[in-house]
Amino acid sequence: MNNFTYHNPTRVVFGKGTAGHARKYLDPQKRVLLLYGRGSVKNNGVYEQVLGGLPTPPVLEFGGIEPNPEYETCMRGVEAAREAGIDFILAVGGGSVIDAAKFIAAAIPYRESDPWDILEKGAAMSAAIPLGTVLTLPGTGSEANAASVISRRARQQKLAFIHPRVQPVFSILDPETTYSLPVRQTVNGVVDAFSHVIEQYMTYPVDSPLQDRQAEAVLLTLIEEGPRAVAQPRDYNARANVMLAAMWALNGHLSCGVPGDWSTHMIGHELTAFFGIDHARSLAVVMPALLREQSAAKHAKLLQFARRVWGVTAEDEGTAVEEGITAMETFFHDLGVETKLSAYDVTLEKTAPIVGRFRTAAARLGEHGDLDADRIEAIFRACA
Amino acid sequence: MNNFTYHNPTRVVFGKGTAGHARKYLDPQKRVLLLYGRGSVKNNGVYEQVLGGLPTPPVLEFGGIEPNPEYETCMRGVEAAREAGIDFILAVGGGSVIDAAKFIAAAIPYRESDPWDILEKGAAMSAAIPLGTVLTLPGTGSEANAASVISRRARQQKLAFIHPRVQPVFSILDPETTYSLPVRQTVNGVVDAFSHVIEQYMTYPVDSPLQDRQAEAVLLTLIEEGPRAVAQPRDYNARANVMLAAMWALNGHLSCGVPGDWSTHMIGHELTAFFGIDHARSLAVVMPALLREQSAAKHAKLLQFARRVWGVTAEDEGTAVEEGITAMETFFHDLGVETKLSAYDVTLEKTAPIVGRFRTAAARLGEHGDLDADRIEAIFRACA
Repeated sequence: MNNFTYHNPTRVVFGKGTAGHARKYLDPQKRVLLLYGRGSVKNNGVYEQVLGGLPTPPVLEFGGIEPNPEYETCMRGVEAAREAGIDFILAVGGGSVIDAAKFIAAAIPYRESDPWDILEKGAAMSAAIPLGTVLTLPGTGSEANAASVISRRARQQKLAFIHPRVQPVFSILDPETTYSLPVRQTVNGVVDAFSHVIEQYMTYPVDSPLQDRQAEAVLLTLIEEGPRAVAQPRDYNARANVMLAAMWALNGHLSCGVPGDWSTHMIGHELTAFFGIDHARSLAVVMPALLREQSAAKHAKLLQFARRVWGVTAEDEGTAVEEGITAMETFFHDLGVETKLSAYDVTLEKTAPIVGRFRTAAARLGEHGDLDADRIEAIFRACA
Repeated sequence: MNNFTYHNPTRVVFGKGTAGHARKYLDPQKRVLLLYGRGSVKNNGVYEQVLGGLPTPPVLEFGGIEPNPEYETCMRGVEAAREAGIDFILAVGGGSVIDAAKFIAAAIPYRESDPWDILEKGAAMSAAIPLGTVLTLPGTGSEANAASVISRRARQQKLAFIHPRVQPVFSILDPETTYSLPVRQTVNGVVDAFSHVIEQYMTYPVDSPLQDRQAEAVLLTLIEEGPRAVAQPRDYNARANVMLAAMWALNGHLSCGVPGDWSTHMIGHELTAFFGIDHARSLAVVMPALLREQSAAKHAKLLQFARRVWGVTAEDEGTAVEEGITAMETFFHDLGVETKLSAYDVTLEKTAPIVGRFRTAAARLGEHGDLDADRIEAIFRACA
């Protein structure tokens, strides 16, 4: 097992009726910015529920955060928040709204240069506005971690930053707020969470049986409960189990002491930046092809995945590995998620600029740093 | 799934060589009390390692904390700490030293009455001295939770309190510090951690598949890695896996959203208070008999435990349940841990005062509150 440090101070408030409980965790003296997305929280009653649970009315509301939150939108929020003297952000929504809240929280006090530098250049931040969340769309895990991903469409960029100062102080997870989610968003969340586990689990063994089984516990939960939540959108336990599993998938625990490989996300982000493919769906395209491309380096874990997660019994190890990956693809397909670029009208030729970016980048991807541009090109060929 | 709130702000620093890293997490301005046990840390080099890693020398050292830390000893520590103006406690040792640190941390600023009231009467505490730990004996999980158990031998009492103010600020877990543990203590830690999982898992189903599998992940790790650590005391990964599993067993995660039943601990504490049986060994005596006594109420989970944890395949459910409990007993026996009171020269007659205590107590034990004195008497008969 590798050395690690783990610190996750987010207070997680989970359960039925909790969406209206913010007053228990929020200082009434705070000048709150209420941040949300494109209005679904106003249609499904969550907005009123949250507002009714605040200790004092928000000083500022800022809506309109889009999926893959946009730098330009966030910067409008930053300006408004600076003018209003905001000192707490309450994000009500899914991962996009929470990611936007984190970037806005970091950008408000950042005056050294364009806050985009926090993402592009890893510019040091010495402060951030504290934030809390009311999660309405499980998937990204952003509610209980310190990461944020922001897009800048004008430059076809989608970049991430991680900083402990933007870890939510509290996050309220009320499964009932997810009853009204469209199937597409429910499914995206399940696939996104599934991929988060894979990125932390599917590397090479480091004699860490507990972390392996914890990862498998989340995968099995998503495999069982994801389809249940789609079939019965108002089944409380199905929604609760998906919501909890998605948080677990990326609250930092699964990566304790083990290597990670975030290649699927790195490549998927580019597909979203270039072609606007939903985040989760970009991952479903890349993941199977990437695992096959890396099947030698990841052999032991792929075999364990096949046997423990999918119950594959084939004696031949190569056959078992392939059956495991195929079972994962079938899981995606059964959820209505495509695993080929062609489903999004993206031809192999169109991926050339992405391969080009990886060709010029110094860093190679993969837990062994051996995934270079040629191999990324091979992955695109395989999922074309 | 039940509603829950989860907040565990302890910074966990885990890995090889970390025992000497306290300076990274400890303010050099702090007036530190270094707390330890009966000297093993001075024999195995951990004391020097920790001391060498401090930002400034401790203002006060206080050794001699015994297993099942004693109120009288702790109160001597409290007096010394008050005199020295201590404002941080660094506990170096196992659960006993950490539990003592928590009580001392709470008692130092507590002036309203005898600090024993915090344990016996649940007296409100409005402050506590912050504390950190360097764990050298995994088992209790005290390094990453807010609970403490203190004994008062003169009154044959062993009582617990839980308060967020005594949650460690940081805990350093260096598996190498456990290489020199006697077999008895290694085994005690494994059995204690195992029992912590059982107390949070072995109740009734609430449709919480993730929590179930997480609990099973810890149990399976302890079953595999415990004997390995005993057989190969200097096997780093075996020690690391046991240390991580023991922390996981009681860092609060497993109880999120599920019912708990701490009856085994409540009864075991009495066996320790009356007869001085090692904490873990008292649990190994009570647990099998208690699970058989409660097998109707716990049937579904006992069956799941038998099948998933022990691989029991017997078709008949009653047979399978019994095979699961027997497998657990065999696991204890193989570790050299007895499961009968007679092994500790405790006759059934001697347990009468314990049954008497439960007869006068208002509260019944068990997740359904249905474990009364008569049934506790039956449990003692079964494990006599």
